[in-house]
Amino acid sequence: MRGHQAKLDISNGCIDLSHGSGGRAMAQLISGLFHEAFGNEWLARGNDQSAFDVGGGRMVMTTDGYVVSPLFFPGGNIGTLAVHGTVNDIAMAGARPLYLSAGFIIEEGFRLSHLKMIAECMGEAARSAGVHIITGDTKVVERGKADGLFISTAGVGVVPVGLDLSAENARVGDRVLISGTLGDHGIAIMSKRQNLAFETDIISDSAALHDLVAKMVEAGGHGIRLMRDPTRGGLAATLNEIARQSDLGFRLQEEAIPVKPDVAAACELLGLDPLHVANEGKLVAIVSPEVANAVLAAMRAHPLGCDAAEIGEAIADDHHFVQMATSFGGGRIVDWLSGEQLPRIC
Amino acid sequence: MRGHQAKLDISNGCIDLSHGSGGRAMAQLISGLFHEAFGNEWLARGNDQSAFDVGGGRMVMTTDGYVVSPLFFPGGNIGTLAVHGTVNDIAMAGARPLYLSAGFIIEEGFRLSHLKMIAECMGEAARSAGVHIITGDTKVVERGKADGLFISTAGVGVVPVGLDLSAENARVGDRVLISGTLGDHGIAIMSKRQNLAFETDIISDSAALHDLVAKMVEAGGHGIRLMRDPTRGGLAATLNEIARQSDLGFRLQEEAIPVKPDVAAACELLGLDPLHVANEGKLVAIVSPEVANAVLAAMRAHPLGCDAAEIGEAIADDHHFVQMATSFGGGRIVDWLSGEQLPRIC
Repeated sequence: MRGHQAKLDISNGCIDLSHGSGGRAMAQLISGLFHEAFGNEWLARGNDQSAFDVGGGRMVMTTDGYVVSPLFFPGGNIGTLAVHGTVNDIAMAGARPLYLSAGFIIEEGFRLSHLKMIAECMGEAARSAGVHIITGDTKVVERGKADGLFISTAGVGVVPVGLDLSAENARVGDRVLISGTLGDHGIAIMSKRQNLAFETDIISDSAALHDLVAKMVEAGGHGIRLMRDPTRGGLAATLNEIARQSDLGFRLQEEAIPVKPDVAAACELLGLDPLHVANEGKLVAIVSPEVANAVLAAMRAHPLGCDAAEIGEAIADDHHFVQMATSFGGGRIVDWLSGEQLPRIC
Repeated sequence: MRGHQAKLDISNGCIDLSHGSGGRAMAQLISGLFHEAFGNEWLARGNDQSAFDVGGGRMVMTTDGYVVSPLFFPGGNIGTLAVHGTVNDIAMAGARPLYLSAGFIIEEGFRLSHLKMIAECMGEAARSAGVHIITGDTKVVERGKADGLFISTAGVGVVPVGLDLSAENARVGDRVLISGTLGDHGIAIMSKRQNLAFETDIISDSAALHDLVAKMVEAGGHGIRLMRDPTRGGLAATLNEIARQSDLGFRLQEEAIPVKPDVAAACELLGLDPLHVANEGKLVAIVSPEVANAVLAAMRAHPLGCDAAEIGEAIADDHHFVQMATSFGGGRIVDWLSGEQLPRIC
């Protein structure tokens, strides 16, 4: 045999530059670790791309990069986050997610055991969401030129016939629905930051929302104008964007917005507004008043929507302001986050 | 007005963490820089995913991460490389590339003027390849946690009816065709490495190969078994992979393999084998003997295939060896690259 390299030593081994060289070590990493974790017929064919059959019609494509720090956090890790985030961006178009790609940028010295754990969690997250990771890429950079591991995922899905959810579709009078409590992901991450660690039982809400979305579309049909998952920048950024894109404003009721007491307490401690904190398993839906109750009932009947609430409505406003009536009877403007409070939350 | 931030100062400004926050600075970066550069109707809708119509049939999906160093090199930059690389991975399935996604992981402090230049080159590369960058993502990490800029692209395309190019399709007796000279990209990059800079006129061969592929498919039809672009690991890695996947071996003729004299000289200087050096605008095709001449003629008639050559054939070999008859009448085994000679070549 001509210098076949030793099998991957997953328990004790680390990534070195040869794992990104295009040579035999990379082939071993791909077949011995990623294919094991994601195992499906597409990857098994070993091409630089994967083919699949589609029935024709409307499809969506999305991509996201993940640079979350720390890589492992209460309720998930960078791998599960990557799968859920991409599934959710597809689902927000009302589409059924089908296929994902996954690219890894790995820092030299990263532990193979951690990579394996993350890849296995991604494989499991994909299987439970009914999607397949059909193609991928691996790059290795020198020590000090990255931060452990970055993951990029892209995904495609099919849109049900006739459905066209988009940011410019909101109309004055539409209702704002939220699928559950705000801020859980951001606070779970912050609680594990080395310079900030604090005790809390909060875990990330990271979850795949496509099934919840399917139930909502069933209940609300074309009455659903658009959906968004309020990740970086939180609900505040999401509603400000929609206000601008649909040329209107929003009025929210603070007391209607669900926030867990622990999250509220942590936000107070850290000087954060829960409306600015990232979520990874929640959605905002803007729906016509006629279907609001039916959609809300469908959300509450789903495990990922049991805390769903109607929190406000779209109003005419040339300034595209998001206003909020506070619990104390006053009012305030919910602005975009300015500057950066929570770097690398996803 | 409520604290609208100043317009992006592209000439003098740098990326800071707020550009990845999900807030207003990020919205400005996306609309003021990326949408300008990639401008198309899909991005203009401002959703987290983009929808497109497909006619049904077979599609392919691919992804790649780009960590090339330096970011700018003779013949291209990380942005053009990302577009060409993804277009090529789609084209290698015989497919017509349609839509790309682009994700950016940016180090704090990166110059906005460089980012704009790279994005504009990507936009132009996409337009000349007839593809659209329809969705994207931007993340910013702290200074020292990345190396300027990493880009991840994914792409989808449609496969002509009945075509199924795949790594396991090679048959004994098939001919090996290469579309041009080997090693140009790798040597162009190496010539600009800070620790190694040397004088050469070699420029990267980075180019989109989908049009060349279409002409080859026209000429060779189902006689084309598979195509690959020999990037990282070079022709050696590509043929070793195909040998393993198709359960056969290859015999090459060294004198038939086109290598520019400057590249050969640089390889000798650096102790590299041109067969291990990366290419970014070349393809290897494994074709049935019946169509070899017709496909070769079609390649030579195309600007990106004018140096195309038949360089060997597939042979029966249980060991999956790639053998080469050398110019001096001897023979040697062309092995995978072991270890890493050229980190971050793409």
